[in-house]
Amino acid sequence: MAETKTTIAVDAAGGDYAPQEVVKGAIRGGEEYGVNIILVGKKAILHVLAARYLKQDWLTIVEANEVIEFNEHPMRAVVSKPNSSIVVGVNLVKQGVAQAFMSAGHTGAMFGASMMILGKKDGIERPAICAVLDITGSTPVVLIDVGANADCKPHYLVQFAEMGIAFARRVLGVKSPRVALLNIGEEDTKGNRLAQDSFVLLKDSGLNFIGNVEGHDLSKRKADVVVTDGFTGNIVLKTLEGMGDVIQNIRELGNAGTKNVRGRALLHLVGIDSWARRMDYREYGGACLLGVNGNIIIAHGRSRAGAIKNAIGLAKQTVEGKISDTIEEERHE
Amino acid sequence: MAETKTTIAVDAAGGDYAPQEVVKGAIRGGEEYGVNIILVGKKAILHVLAARYLKQDWLTIVEANEVIEFNEHPMRAVVSKPNSSIVVGVNLVKQGVAQAFMSAGHTGAMFGASMMILGKKDGIERPAICAVLDITGSTPVVLIDVGANADCKPHYLVQFAEMGIAFARRVLGVKSPRVALLNIGEEDTKGNRLAQDSFVLLKDSGLNFIGNVEGHDLSKRKADVVVTDGFTGNIVLKTLEGMGDVIQNIRELGNAGTKNVRGRALLHLVGIDSWARRMDYREYGGACLLGVNGNIIIAHGRSRAGAIKNAIGLAKQTVEGKISDTIEEERHE
Repeated sequence: MAETKTTIAVDAAGGDYAPQEVVKGAIRGGEEYGVNIILVGKKAILHVLAARYLKQDWLTIVEANEVIEFNEHPMRAVVSKPNSSIVVGVNLVKQGVAQAFMSAGHTGAMFGASMMILGKKDGIERPAICAVLDITGSTPVVLIDVGANADCKPHYLVQFAEMGIAFARRVLGVKSPRVALLNIGEEDTKGNRLAQDSFVLLKDSGLNFIGNVEGHDLSKRKADVVVTDGFTGNIVLKTLEGMGDVIQNIRELGNAGTKNVRGRALLHLVGIDSWARRMDYREYGGACLLGVNGNIIIAHGRSRAGAIKNAIGLAKQTVEGKISDTIEEERHE
Repeated sequence: MAETKTTIAVDAAGGDYAPQEVVKGAIRGGEEYGVNIILVGKKAILHVLAARYLKQDWLTIVEANEVIEFNEHPMRAVVSKPNSSIVVGVNLVKQGVAQAFMSAGHTGAMFGASMMILGKKDGIERPAICAVLDITGSTPVVLIDVGANADCKPHYLVQFAEMGIAFARRVLGVKSPRVALLNIGEEDTKGNRLAQDSFVLLKDSGLNFIGNVEGHDLSKRKADVVVTDGFTGNIVLKTLEGMGDVIQNIRELGNAGTKNVRGRALLHLVGIDSWARRMDYREYGGACLLGVNGNIIIAHGRSRAGAIKNAIGLAKQTVEGKISDTIEEERHE
């Protein structure tokens, strides 16, 4: 294995299309992004699936003969399946063998294993999942939390803001990220109790807080980082994914209905085709679990090879942006 | 005024494009849906704007020389401005002069005036706003609450379900509406505390409760009625509106970029054009405030004539479905 390159461990057993599509995407990611790949899963199967690449110095396989299924209780599964691909993968990060671990498997188990094995960062009470929304293709917005914490206290949202700022700066390259609170009105006093109390804390936080934004502002990049509780954030993210699916269907119908090359060229010309492609959740790649001691990437359960490849790109950016190391220092800048 | 027809009062002073677009839309609505229209606002202006229709027996004007502005505190404004178009309009419903009142003005003031003047229905603790989402054009889903109650208790959501069922049955014509809870996973135990506790109550409610749905299910009509707290519901609704705006922009760019008739015909052929039009919030018309003693329609602040016209269609359906009278009986069927 090439020593100076970033190494990404990939859960070859997690996700709806594992292992075939995950292995394919991981190999593509390794080639495209020039990173070392460790496939974590059942060796016997992975040797067959990755047969053509076994002699590459950037690809290795690590045995994990158990799988955490989608319907399992996350913490119980993590404890009872030490040889599961998720637990083995997170341990590779803990041991420093890999700089990041990516899985399209059980999100709750990823969260649980990361908390148990890597531990929380100093000063972070609740790690959170951060996703990049890019609804128009030129308006990337960091949304945090999108599902780790269904019930939140106001000061959690200040920590989400700090982590989101670190991510926007280090991964997206935004110099002075503007933070906003997702709310049901622009006025300072709007919202449910959590939003009202969080607003006061965010205003006094010393962060670059610009106030409330509403649902329709997510497509406008009014802020670079939008904080919300994990319940609301998860529902927003999935609502957008649902829209993405609808748009894909229309795009496919459009392509099918447009039997000639000229027609397809027109769809391309008017921008619908490329926009629809960008709206596809597969292009987002994945979300980052922030606030644990290590780089953890959570890919969509429905990820096919293209999405896995993109998630590897995100993992590389996260490692190289030193996001995990710098949350603490960003917080006090 | 024709006595046997349904009469809809319209706030001619409310909304971003009032009074011109509201008057235009109200007149179109009166013509298209065969209802009596009462324009509520400053007589002097309305006489000019509606000059050509003043002799029609279905159009009347009622004076209201005050306006509640968007930045006013809702209850204080309702109390201090008895001659505002919103207070006068709600009073027309209270007095039985109109069977419904529609406004694109201050939502909070509409809610406050309705609570104060009409009062809550027996057995309903919290009136709620219900909107119809129709993401694909053939999957109408009733979402309730979309903004009246930012903080909810679990039993409110059961009442939202009951009101949503009445609406789906009486207005959308769904025979046995299926109810679901908007949540962050399908499993029974998912969600924040409110969702978990609401799930238990909904399961025991005797309603046709099919369990949890997620954000991406809103475009699939997995359920006919989806209940949520007003904070989450409002953010979901506005997120979809934001997407709608993006799609409109692309559609307009597409139409502009497609200089020839054949190109536009192609956009039409592949369904993008008509779908984009349906996605436009203006097509939704408006949302209904359910649980007060009267029919109250809340239109989007950005409504132009077409949206106002559609909101009048919704008002007519709401009156004719006897939604306000039948929530109570639906609840115990």
